Amino acid sequence: MNVFLNDYNDLCHEEVYKKLASVREKANIGYGNDEYTNRAKELIKRDLKRDDIEIEFLAGGTIANIIGISANLMHYEGIIAVESGHIVGHEAGSIEATGHKVELIHSEDGKLSADALEERLEDFTEEYHIVPKVVYISQTTELGTVYSYEEIKSIYDVCLEHGLYLYIDGARMAVGLAASGMDVADLCEVCDIFTLGGTKNGALYGEALVVVEDELKQNLRNFMKQRGAVMAKGFVMGAQFEALFENGLYYELGKKAYNSSLKLAKAIEETKIEFYQTPKSNQIFIIYPTSKIEKLREQNLFEVSPYDKENKALRFVTTYKTTDEEIESLKNCLLEI
Amino acid sequence: MNVFLNDYNDLCHEEVYKKLASVREKANIGYGNDEYTNRAKELIKRDLKRDDIEIEFLAGGTIANIIGISANLMHYEGIIAVESGHIVGHEAGSIEATGHKVELIHSEDGKLSADALEERLEDFTEEYHIVPKVVYISQTTELGTVYSYEEIKSIYDVCLEHGLYLYIDGARMAVGLAASGMDVADLCEVCDIFTLGGTKNGALYGEALVVVEDELKQNLRNFMKQRGAVMAKGFVMGAQFEALFENGLYYELGKKAYNSSLKLAKAIEETKIEFYQTPKSNQIFIIYPTSKIEKLREQNLFEVSPYDKENKALRFVTTYKTTDEEIESLKNCLLEI
Amino acid sequence: MNVFLNDYNDLCHEEVYKKLASVREKANIGYGNDEYTNRAKELIKRDLKRDDIEIEFLAGGTIANIIGISANLMHYEGIIAVESGHIVGHEAGSIEATGHKVELIHSEDGKLSADALEERLEDFTEEYHIVPKVVYISQTTELGTVYSYEEIKSIYDVCLEHGLYLYIDGARMAVGLAASGMDVADLCEVCDIFTLGGTKNGALYGEALVVVEDELKQNLRNFMKQRGAVMAKGFVMGAQFEALFENGLYYELGKKAYNSSLKLAKAIEETKIEFYQTPKSNQIFIIYPTSKIEKLREQNLFEVSPYDKENKALRFVTTYKTTDEEIESLKNCLLEI
Amino acid sequence: MNVFLNDYNDLCHEEVYKKLASVREKANIGYGNDEYTNRAKELIKRDLKRDDIEIEFLAGGTIANIIGISANLMHYEGIIAVESGHIVGHEAGSIEATGHKVELIHSEDGKLSADALEERLEDFTEEYHIVPKVVYISQTTELGTVYSYEEIKSIYDVCLEHGLYLYIDGARMAVGLAASGMDVADLCEVCDIFTLGGTKNGALYGEALVVVEDELKQNLRNFMKQRGAVMAKGFVMGAQFEALFENGLYYELGKKAYNSSLKLAKAIEETKIEFYQTPKSNQIFIIYPTSKIEKLREQNLFEVSPYDKENKALRFVTTYKTTDEEIESLKNCLLEI
Repeated sequence: MNVFLNDYNDLCHEEVYKKLASVREKANIGYGNDEYTNRAKELIKRDLKRDDIEIEFLAGGTIANIIGISANLMHYEGIIAVESGHIVGHEAGSIEATGHKVELIHSEDGKLSADALEERLEDFTEEYHIVPKVVYISQTTELGTVYSYEEIKSIYDVCLEHGLYLYIDGARMAVGLAASGMDVADLCEVCDIFTLGGTKNGALYGEALVVVEDELKQNLRNFMKQRGAVMAKGFVMGAQFEALFENGLYYELGKKAYNSSLKLAKAIEETKIEFYQTPKSNQIFIIYPTSKIEKLREQNLFEVSPYDKENKALRFVTTYKTTDEEIESLKNCLLEI
Repeated sequence: MNVFLNDYNDLCHEEVYKKLASVREKANIGYGNDEYTNRAKELIKRDLKRDDIEIEFLAGGTIANIIGISANLMHYEGIIAVESGHIVGHEAGSIEATGHKVELIHSEDGKLSADALEERLEDFTEEYHIVPKVVYISQTTELGTVYSYEEIKSIYDVCLEHGLYLYIDGARMAVGLAASGMDVADLCEVCDIFTLGGTKNGALYGEALVVVEDELKQNLRNFMKQRGAVMAKGFVMGAQFEALFENGLYYELGKKAYNSSLKLAKAIEETKIEFYQTPKSNQIFIIYPTSKIEKLREQNLFEVSPYDKENKALRFVTTYKTTDEEIESLKNCLLEI
Repeated sequence: MNVFLNDYNDLCHEEVYKKLASVREKANIGYGNDEYTNRAKELIKRDLKRDDIEIEFLAGGTIANIIGISANLMHYEGIIAVESGHIVGHEAGSIEATGHKVELIHSEDGKLSADALEERLEDFTEEYHIVPKVVYISQTTELGTVYSYEEIKSIYDVCLEHGLYLYIDGARMAVGLAASGMDVADLCEVCDIFTLGGTKNGALYGEALVVVEDELKQNLRNFMKQRGAVMAKGFVMGAQFEALFENGLYYELGKKAYNSSLKLAKAIEETKIEFYQTPKSNQIFIIYPTSKIEKLREQNLFEVSPYDKENKALRFVTTYKTTDEEIESLKNCLLEI
Repeated sequence: MNVFLNDYNDLCHEEVYKKLASVREKANIGYGNDEYTNRAKELIKRDLKRDDIEIEFLAGGTIANIIGISANLMHYEGIIAVESGHIVGHEAGSIEATGHKVELIHSEDGKLSADALEERLEDFTEEYHIVPKVVYISQTTELGTVYSYEEIKSIYDVCLEHGLYLYIDGARMAVGLAASGMDVADLCEVCDIFTLGGTKNGALYGEALVVVEDELKQNLRNFMKQRGAVMAKGFVMGAQFEALFENGLYYELGKKAYNSSLKLAKAIEETKIEFYQTPKSNQIFIIYPTSKIEKLREQNLFEVSPYDKENKALRFVTTYKTTDEEIESLKNCLLEI
């Protein structure tokens, strides 16, 4: 079976698993005050070339978004995001459940543009509006598209001009770095707070929340505790992130997944099947006849979403485990069915 | 070093670790729809002798309390708990953050009594009061005390009479079962919803939320998703709970911790040092001169909290890993210092 | 000066003012348990031809929407409304502040259609979506358009089929009744909960919230109290609504405002100036050159909103106080400027 | 009938009623941007001897508390109040509904002391605690007791030292000023935000929220709008407060109520009936045999609350309308029954 299902179907990378073994025989300090967590934080700070940032580890993407977005918001403040944003349609109203409204911007390719943001901000001038405070984007986006450094920077310039925080959801940041050619240290220059996703890049679970802006660091741990986001055995996440960052494994896995996505895109292109979105990262979407899906599923794992009466949108996800054989096999299936 | 620090300082039990190994080579289905999670749920249902219950796995104790307590509450409904309840003083206002007030009852030993509950309910009769809806207790309590089956049943009878849900926080339920002599299946008879804590009983992380009452099952998964409580790699928890429940390991570990606590209580009794609370489970509290603590720490790990000008309350926690040598060694330290 | 500013610029209707005088010399019971409030409720029940409804009086439109919409919602439930809905863009995130997400439907004329609702509901099928529970519409709409009885009924049929509540924001219901030709008693047949706005129809302040559906009545007073919506001197609202409903004044004022709007629409039509929306009720919008607005303001009060580079959208509102002279004078201004 | 029921049973003071008449014939600007509201704000600023304060008018005491307390709170911040505080037991969980926990302090006389506050603050040092941010007191208290200027100042000193805001609920501030001998301008020196209650002192409804601290002024109007606290016809409140403050009527009515309370206290003292709390302001509580209450009610209006098996606590409230005859008559009833 060729596995293009998603990027969170394996237990974890071998190095992560080995690191956990080393944790076994100790009496570790709780709540993330342990040596593993401390080392993991130092390693990430080293890569980010910043000492003055706060790093916290959170168990999953949605709780990371909740914490990172609503950390220091006043009741009347709101968030701006594109309509296809993960927080808009895939988190069951998680942000609204914190009491904050998410104001929407339409986007064809899943990306926010600085111009669209600038224009949208003009809508919030009256006392009967929310006060915009956080701009949400993700790298990569829900549609698999990717921001360049310049694009993020131009969004951030608008944010700075208007007193807004920029939050980058990095559930797939490892691939995002590979695809955009950005260095991880660049991130600190173009936003206030972001995540480095582990769950979709070799960890059992866990996202690193990186807080650059001082105001967002205030009592962050109390807020995490309040939302059930502090893990008693924080060292389990600390150990995983130590494994991911001590020798660049995090970036390497992202590159592998990205490189496989390039190969997969080329392979699909050769089948002449239409893409739903031009492939840019490890989520590749095609438009495919509903009638043929059953057959395709016999040898391939992938996700399906609605498209039109006769076709569906299929999503193929590559990961650091994807093999050339799987890509070749999928290509053959697409050609033959 | 004798480890009496807490019950969440090791990675996990060996059997749990082995089970994780078996997960490694598969493409697992996400969000808890995998085979491990399904088997774990079936195993727990077998032990609970009930097919009509819903079981969900949550990453930690606070998020489990948030989900279990506020699942199906209306805005005007509130919770009743004793002043020393974990949700009252140790979760940074997590329940209030869901919009619900926690009304307090004073208790000397950390336990709620049916009589105290009955009396307190008389305070909520007016439209300017919250409408009580959930009663929160924990087994074992924050002070290490333990409810008998009859005690919980009498609380539940009051709940049933007044249309309230009874929620039992079972972060330490494995020890609670051993200490109370209750069978796990008894729990379904005396409450509406409860947790079986894994984090403090051999898991890397994870609590099983068991929902007995039908009304509390409604759209529970949507609510979990909204609060960031659905794990993408749900199979990691599923596998752990399969390991804990397939051969009774969960209960066995609880008994070990409890048996060690009996030995520790006896050992301390022999030193004539005063207990802060009569020992009932694996958290044992003594009153100890502040001046001697530093010395005691040289060979022992434990937690300290305020007591009076010259003394502190020390907490010693036994776990399934506690050895007789550690207990003997601690006793000797207490005698000699 | 011709007053087309809005429908809430006068103190109150003369009959309302007189009624207040009668309250002066008594020791009235607080919190809406007084004789005036009781009589007002009975009068409204009489007109609605229903005894089994609950009526509460609330100080303003936004608090009435908050109470009426989120009264008995679970945390994971959400609201559906058109993009131009008052709760979407004019209440500073009031509904989201209760923790509930508002899902949007696009509409050109400000009205929701049964078909659009039916189609939109298909989007909420997964556990990572909110669970739709309340449909929000207003009669009249923000754009001055009006629902017919049949249109509301077809929306309500969809609601009933999907287990949703239909809430009608009736801030301008008096005009809505006149414009739609509906009898007030019809409302109980086609929705679960609605308001009869007083503020914009002759009261100093106050909206009657009418709860038809039994489930929405549960502990409604506690919820109102919690949101600061119970007035100590409830009798002040009770007296006003008694005045409005004892002799049909409420409907009469709505008809007057509506009849004036018909005249105003005809007058503007004669000027050949383009309408922004076809006039349907007492809010009439025209597209007008920005350059001429200053001059128009010399003799007329109205509101202005953005339209395009050279034009603005002007809103003229008629009320029960609007005179034929004002309409004639505005027409002349429009012709002459 | 002698009316000691409460201080919100009349329509309003004659001067307030007259002022409303003057509003009738104008087209007033909405949402509190009118001339009456502007003048009322200027008058209060004059009395407070401060130009740099923000004043907003809110419809009732609970909504004023919601707005004033949670205005600029972060999610993890909490409130400290005495157990008998109005927000604790009489507002149906209104503060918790904003997501913030209220931490309690025990008090025999309903007053918070600086020492008790200082001591209680020591409890909030860990990340699993809320971060205290607002201290709530009321002048006068729920038990009718009164703070001196020095007492409030000493509480405020503790607040300043710990970075807390002090909020004073002034639902009965007019009597509070009379009873404490404080000048209204003193308030700006000893707290960050407070209310001047109108509902219980001659208005139809309305509380003036006075914001001294700059941080609390940020986007206050947006927050008010979000909570349904902005009245469309704001001028109705503006006019009332103009009437109350243009010639010192507000203070005069408070003094009348207070002076009557002194007479009533003396009258009751002469009956040798036991007070529940030593009388300090216009709420006077006595302990009274349950068996005699029915008879007492024949000529007197008052409120009753539980005390012990054979007695109840009766509350007698004086207002600016209380007459010497009513006091004399009540005294005679108490003596004769």
